[in-house]
This record gives sequence, structure tokens and C-alpha cells, in this order.
Amino acid sequence: MGAREHAWNRQQGNRADRLARAHSVLAGGLSGKVCEAGRIADLLHAVLEPGDRVCLEGNNQKQADFLGKALAGLDPARINQLHMLQSVIALPEHLDVFERGIASRLDFSFSGPQAGRLARLVASGKLNIGAIHTYLELFSRYFIDLTPRVSLIVAEAADRAGNLYTGPNTEDTPAIVEATAFKSGIVIAQVNRIDDTLPRVDIPASWVDFVVQSPSPYYIEPLFTRDPAQISEIQVLMAMMAIKGIYAEYEVERLNHGIGFDTAAIELLLPTYAQSLGLKGKIARHWALNPHPALIPAIEAGFVESVHSFGSELGMEEYIRARPDVFFVGPDGSMRSNRALCQAAGHYACDMFIGSTLQIDLQGNSSTATLGRVAGFGGAPNMGADARGRRHVSPAWLKAGRQAREGRNLMPRGQKLVVQMVETFREHMQPAFVDRLDAWQLAEQAGMEIPPVMIYGEDVTHILTEEGIANLLLCRSDEEREQAIRGVAGYTAVGLARDKRMVENLRDRGIIRRAEDLGIDKRLATRDLLAAKNMKDLVRASGGLYDPPKRFRNW
Amino acid sequence: MGAREHAWNRQQGNRADRLARAHSVLAGGLSGKVCEAGRIADLLHAVLEPGDRVCLEGNNQKQADFLGKALAGLDPARINQLHMLQSVIALPEHLDVFERGIASRLDFSFSGPQAGRLARLVASGKLNIGAIHTYLELFSRYFIDLTPRVSLIVAEAADRAGNLYTGPNTEDTPAIVEATAFKSGIVIAQVNRIDDTLPRVDIPASWVDFVVQSPSPYYIEPLFTRDPAQISEIQVLMAMMAIKGIYAEYEVERLNHGIGFDTAAIELLLPTYAQSLGLKGKIARHWALNPHPALIPAIEAGFVESVHSFGSELGMEEYIRARPDVFFVGPDGSMRSNRALCQAAGHYACDMFIGSTLQIDLQGNSSTATLGRVAGFGGAPNMGADARGRRHVSPAWLKAGRQAREGRNLMPRGQKLVVQMVETFREHMQPAFVDRLDAWQLAEQAGMEIPPVMIYGEDVTHILTEEGIANLLLCRSDEEREQAIRGVAGYTAVGLARDKRMVENLRDRGIIRRAEDLGIDKRLATRDLLAAKNMKDLVRASGGLYDPPKRFRNW
Repeated sequence: MGAREHAWNRQQGNRADRLARAHSVLAGGLSGKVCEAGRIADLLHAVLEPGDRVCLEGNNQKQADFLGKALAGLDPARINQLHMLQSVIALPEHLDVFERGIASRLDFSFSGPQAGRLARLVASGKLNIGAIHTYLELFSRYFIDLTPRVSLIVAEAADRAGNLYTGPNTEDTPAIVEATAFKSGIVIAQVNRIDDTLPRVDIPASWVDFVVQSPSPYYIEPLFTRDPAQISEIQVLMAMMAIKGIYAEYEVERLNHGIGFDTAAIELLLPTYAQSLGLKGKIARHWALNPHPALIPAIEAGFVESVHSFGSELGMEEYIRARPDVFFVGPDGSMRSNRALCQAAGHYACDMFIGSTLQIDLQGNSSTATLGRVAGFGGAPNMGADARGRRHVSPAWLKAGRQAREGRNLMPRGQKLVVQMVETFREHMQPAFVDRLDAWQLAEQAGMEIPPVMIYGEDVTHILTEEGIANLLLCRSDEEREQAIRGVAGYTAVGLARDKRMVENLRDRGIIRRAEDLGIDKRLATRDLLAAKNMKDLVRASGGLYDPPKRFRNW
Repeated sequence: MGAREHAWNRQQGNRADRLARAHSVLAGGLSGKVCEAGRIADLLHAVLEPGDRVCLEGNNQKQADFLGKALAGLDPARINQLHMLQSVIALPEHLDVFERGIASRLDFSFSGPQAGRLARLVASGKLNIGAIHTYLELFSRYFIDLTPRVSLIVAEAADRAGNLYTGPNTEDTPAIVEATAFKSGIVIAQVNRIDDTLPRVDIPASWVDFVVQSPSPYYIEPLFTRDPAQISEIQVLMAMMAIKGIYAEYEVERLNHGIGFDTAAIELLLPTYAQSLGLKGKIARHWALNPHPALIPAIEAGFVESVHSFGSELGMEEYIRARPDVFFVGPDGSMRSNRALCQAAGHYACDMFIGSTLQIDLQGNSSTATLGRVAGFGGAPNMGADARGRRHVSPAWLKAGRQAREGRNLMPRGQKLVVQMVETFREHMQPAFVDRLDAWQLAEQAGMEIPPVMIYGEDVTHILTEEGIANLLLCRSDEEREQAIRGVAGYTAVGLARDKRMVENLRDRGIIRRAEDLGIDKRLATRDLLAAKNMKDLVRASGGLYDPPKRFRNW
């Protein structure tokens, strides 16, 4: 091989060196691609190099926890300056690697549970944040300028050839492995078990270099389970307004829901309140959504035609298996989720995103970043943004676009409905409406170029609180928009500072609508409207197929 | 199985019925999953049902032509009312199925070569268009409300178990198969050959139902090859302006190029003009792009660090294999493309899209739809739209966002550069600038709800013609924007109707920049600047590795 050619296959050569080191160090510890669990540190020391970009799999559901712990236990004198790529920072070991000097740089999407410690590590200089992304954006960079050199992934089972079965929680695995395997990187998978034959193949063996059976099954959290017992009557009222004032108004057939109790209440009102309005078959037919247990009654009532999922949800396995007309399942009967494709679907094939937030400012910008916490965005920016590349029409999309453009000399275009649903005060009486987002101060503290906004005001179409719905599509000036927001901000300082006459004018024009304007009888807004009032009701609705995790078995 | 359960697995039951019919009809014509080519009509008659949603694979590169022909030859008395889902309408048989009454509805993305006949079929009532999409949007709907019941796909090779090797032209296959196989649909693959072992597995056998070896290799077109001999000196001048006035100005490191001669000229000026400006390592480092032969000199000069591709390009196979540090290749050395993931990457991980169009109006809206031709959009709307879900920063993105927001009280946000690069007159002296897009009239004729706009003026940041660059980010009113566009529209009627004083004012403010304003010596704008002047030069630059298709071997 000439010198010139050599210069163009350094990655392949380096990959071969890493594999040779692994085989030389491990020798008897390797059987084909299968590495003994006890030798994982040796394997990682052999294949990693300082400065590597390392993708550690873990979303807010399944976690490559065994590999993550092993990574955090490596010798920082040998392996250091790693650049970590992670969808989610969820477990202590995800930050231990920085604390111990093994890694120094981080590109990620979400860090809910570790947001405080993450902020402290940034302040201490031990952790340098590249950027915070929405999931699909982070996956996208894996193919452009953040391609992983080594990926540490997680699957349910492998066969001896290295084929992987990821089953219901396929999640991020396909996108990560594709980016790594096809750029001469190294893919190491932890698996719960090694079987002779797999129920189906989710990742072909030729994409995988090493497989290790972890001593215990991978860590996984039921993050999308909401106990109906905790839904308040205010949330029932807000859900009624959402259904009558937005879902019915725009004929929203394809959608994504956030993960809070607000949207769980909507799910539980579909077979009762929405049904009573004659909306079955007209709204909420196709979903990009994890298999929320709260959706069971709506599925059973025939409201829901299809659900494609980012990941799965613990306890929903048998229910999904018994409802294959609704969910995406493989020939083995278990679900195939795929976060990259479901995020694309949420962006391009849904007419509405509705979710919650922590703070909203007077322009409608919202953020979950609060002081001292670098929390990240998850999927919200992708789904809570107008999909400006979209070209197919639907009644919802056309109507939103018309409302935004009425009276303006603009090329006709549809628009995605992006609804922020918040009570005016959140926990500990913190106002959800603020003059200035904490994100500004956080940006200063963490040296970010711009404040970490989750959803921009420009993209929000409606704000829904217990006081009513503000339709921002119909606002024609910054002032109108500000008063529309103040007009649903209740007794917060922002709400109290409203211009009452202007707010009444906005209400006359239908820009602000109260429950009574929508013909909603507030006396009906009781928990009796919920199709399931507690976890046991959900199990019953599922015909006993839903098997809630222990912590939710509260009856 | 109880009655209640039965209602939830109709798709699986129906799938089993279809498979049973196939096995009963074909009997000896099937060996495992492998169907004899001569029995393809029997197979299709057996597995299809009237009204099915059928995805026929074919992008503007590889085509499932054997299956497409077989479909068009079916008996319309047995198989009719099909709803076709297709990335591209490229071959006559794609429309024959409508002409013959086998299919009646179409959702698609692009129809370049068949656009005229498509329009006539719409007019005759034989073909009902669901919608025109951008590719990623169409794939997204496969997981939400347009899931295929049967997919007819194409691969290079299969093994006897049904594993598929799609090799360099993997393209749309993974997204199509995943949506179909995991919703109890049927996947039939045509392959060029059946081998005992595959170079690698691109699609696992458990996702594939039938494999048929086509009598001749699948049809594939080299659509991204531009002969440098056809690049004009005006295009060289425009490329110089692009490089100095946009690439350098914004430090554009990650990008996508359109497929015209305009952008091919830019590719060929990187190792010469851009190099002379000291831009190597500063611009055009990471690409979401098919392997354009015109990029070879820039790759050889070390300008290009990585290229991820939607599909491949005929003749580039050996060159790609020898440059694995740049391209995404598998362990077998051949490329893995993936249109869905590359479109996501183009949307979220690129700072700029630059491409051409046929018509631009006074608001900057552009369209390739012209009267009597329903042409579709391809990938342009996805990449030529501001990615509003993006949250990571780069110098280019931040600068564009700052320019758009300067002096406005808006939350800081970056913005994607979307550049339309056109000569003021296109072929046959048709003006590229018009008062009103043909898309309006086409929408009326075809009964579309809104005109088929490829890229909206709201998303365009720069328009570049031989007369100069109009920076629309800096415009602060509709009038300024209109005059900025007129100011680069040359001798078209739109250009001649400019307000000269206002245009000069825009030029003083840097909103319009001419070659001389950029310090570009027009005398240098000759073909001598091209790093390759013809196909032979490209072959030479590749060290003989690039092997152009016959029709381009013009020396």
C-alpha cells in the first residue's frame, strides 16, 4: 500500500489496531465477539484511546448501565479527555467519568435527574459542554461532525454471531450503531442474555464488534407512567378546554403528547368527554408517542388507530403484544420502537405537539432551564417547532396557517399547532409566567452563546392555562401577543399586570377564550370524567394485560 | 382466541392470509423465501388486495424496476384501487399502473422525468394525488398515517435466508422496510443476485418476506454527475461570489449542495479559488451529499473531511472504497447510504443549503413547478428550510440569526443559511424571476389547496445571481426584500422594474453586493479556475479510481 493511499484509510487502520489490541489483551476472555463480563475493563482499556468521541447509549428509558459503570472505573492515566455523546445524562456514573478525569467534553440532549450536578461540574471546569440538542439533532450530527469512534450500546439479547435483539426498547440503538459501524468505529453491546436464536434481528451482527453479557439486566425506568389518581380537577378542566377548544376546533388527527399529568388528563378524557362531543374518529387517531398507560382507555374505546413509539414503557409489553393493529410490532409480537424515526414522524407527520414547560415569557418563549440546573430539551424542540419543510396538507395544518396569515400578503402555507399547557402556578407556588426566563442567567453562568430556550415564542400557537386559551396565531402585533399571554396568566405578577381593556378586546375577537366562551360547564370538570381514576382502573381497562411496575401498584 | 382479541390483530391475520395464499398458489415456485422470477405476477396477485397501500421503492437513483413492471402488468379486475407510495415517479411503468386502472391514488416526493404525463393523468381523473412531500416527510408518514401494507423494494443481493445487501445504494430501503415489516405488512425484494454469503447485512432476513432475483440488474441512473466541460464562465463567477460572499463570510463548515452546474462549479473552485483565499480547513469540511464526482478535486486537496450520503453515484464505487476516511463505508469497504438519516442530517446538522430553482417571486418564494408539470420537491424543502428545532450553535448559524434579528426585540436564535443560486435567465431565455409563480396556476388546475412552493421566501436567506448577492436576512420590510430581489434580477422584467435609488441604498448598506463590492476581479472568472475542466480531469484527479458511466466518457 502506497503512502498516498495510506493517508485515506487511517480510520480503518486505527480500527484494526484497536481490534488487535483487544484480541491480544483478552485472548481467552474472548469467544468470537463475546467478551466475558469480568474482562470489560480490559476490553475498554484496549479499544479506547484518549480523546475518543464515545457514544454511551442511554435514553430516558433503557441505559447501557453496565458499560457506563465500567467506563467510569477506567484508569484516567490511560483513558482521558474523552468526548462523550449521550442522549441523556441520567445515572451518577454518567458524570463520574468527568469527575474522575476520564472524559472532559459532553454533547447531549437531556439531563433531568442529573441537571444540578451537571451544572456544578461545568462551573468547576471539569466538564465542557459542546451543546445541548434535541434528540434527532444529536443523531444527525453523528453523521456529520460528531461521528462516534466507539459506541457502548445496550440490547436485550445477542446470538453468538453478534446479531442483536433490542425488542420493545430499540430506541436510539439503530441510529447510533449505523453512524459508528459505517465509519470504521467500534461497537460494543451489553446484553441481558446470549441466546442461540433471537426472536428477531434488530441489529445485524456485521454492525457489532463485541458483545458482553451484563451481570444484571440493563437499567430501565417507566418514565411515561402517570397515575390517574394524581390528576387534579383543574387538570380535568384544562383537558376539556384542550379537547373542545383545540382538538375539535382544528380537527387534530395526528399528534404527539408531552409526558405530564396535563396531557395524561386529555388522554383519559378521550373516551368520556371527547366521545360525548361526537369526536371519535375525528380527532387523535394517529400518534407519535411512547405507549402511555393513560392511553389504554382511549385505545379500548376505538379512538386510537395507530401509535408509533420512540421507546417502550415498562409493564405495557403484553398489552402491546395483544394490540398489534395499534402498535408497531415485529413478527415475534413485541414492539419495535425507533427514536430517530419517531422523532422524524413527530416533526413531519403530526399536526400538533402539546406539552408543558416550567417558564413562559411575554413573547411566549419557554424553557425548562432554571438556575443551577442544565436540564436539556429532549424531543420537545423537534416536535414543538413548525416543520417548515412540510408540504402535505391537513385540515389542522391549513387552518393554523390561515389564521397566522389572514390579512397578510404572504404565500399560503400551513403551520404546526404547538400548544403549551401549564397551570399558572407550578409547584411551590412558582409562577409559570415570568418577565424574563431564568435561561438568560443560566446562559451567562454556563457561557452559552444564546439562552437555552426549549420552545420559541415564534413557534408556539396556543397557550392553555386554567384561565383559558390564548391563540397566538391570531395576534397581529407584539403588543397583542403580550396581552394575550398576560390574559391567561391568572394571578401571577405577569397576569395581574394585564391591560384589562385590551384583554377584553382580545376575548371579543376570540384570541382569548375562557371555558365559558367554549361552552364548557365548569361544574362538569370533576375527576368523574376520567376514564380511569387510578392505576387499577388502567389495569382493568387493559383486560389485565397491563402490568404496572411495582412502585405504581398502589392498590 | 376470543372475539374481543380478534378485533385487535386483524393486520396480523390478514398478513397470514396473504402469505398462505402465496404459498398455496406458488407451491413449487417458492423455495423458502425465494420466488422464481417467472412467477412474480402470481406472487403479486396472491399477496395484494384491492385498495392496498403499496410502496414501490425507487428514488432518483436505484429503481425496483422489475417489481414495478410486474405490478403494472397485473390484472386490474383482480388488483385495483391501489394507493401508491413512492419517493420518485421516474419510469413509465410508475404511471402505467394508473393508466391501466390498477392504482388510483398517489403520495410521492418527486417526479421530474414523468411530470408532464403525471399532470395529464391527474387531469383525466385516473390519478388522484394525495400530496407532494419532501422525502423525509414521506418516510415520516409511513410511521403515522401512510403505513404501507405491501412494500416492493430493491437490493443488490440476498442470501437464501432473506438477508439483504443493499450496498452503496441503500438509500430509502431501511425506512420503507422498517415501517412495513413492523406493522404486519409484506416486504418483497427484487435482487440482482442470490449469494450464499453477503458482504454485509443491510436488512435482516426477519424483516423480509419474499426475495426474487430479477432477470437483469436493477435500473440505476447517475443523476449527480456533472461534466465540468459544461460549466460556463458565468457559473465560475457566481461560484466565486458564493465562496467569498457567503462561504467565507459565514464560515460555513457543514453543508449540502444542490445538484446543478452552479454548485458543481463551487465544488470545482474549492481547491483553486477557495484555496487561494486561505479557506482550506475553514469552510466546506463536512457534507450531507451524494458522492458527486465534481467533489473529487476538493477531497484530494484535503478540503473535505467527511461526506454522508443519501445514495451513491454510479462510477464512484472504487473511489469511495479507497477514501474510507471521508465516506461512510461498511466493513466490506463499500458505502452505506441512508436517505432518511442523511435528510435528517441535512436538516439538523448542516449550516447551509445552496441550490437552484426555476422560478423566484418578489417575496423570494421559489418553485420548480411549471405549467403542465407536477414535478415535486425531492429533498429541497427539508434542507432548504430553517431547522427551527435546532439548538446547537455554530458561527454560521449564529451570524445568520443575528443578522435576521438585529434591532428587533426577539429572543436570540440562530438560523440556517438557505441560498438560491440562479442565473437571471434560464434555458430558452425564460426569466428566473417572475411576478407570480406558475405554482399558483398549477394549484388551481390540479385542485391543490395551496400552491406547490419548493422553498418559501421566509426561509431563503440569500439569492445569488450573476448580478450579485441579495442578503434577505438584513431586509427589514417587505419593500426592502422586494427591491433586494429586483436588484439582483438583472435584465428580467422584474429586474428592470427596480427602484434604482432604493437598490443603490441597499447596496450601500451591504444588503446587495456585486462582484466588485466583494473584491472579486471578474477577469479571473474563467474556466481556468476549475480544478477539473472535463470528465477526464476528474478521472485523473481520482488517480484513475473514478470510472464514469459510458455516456460521460466523452474523451
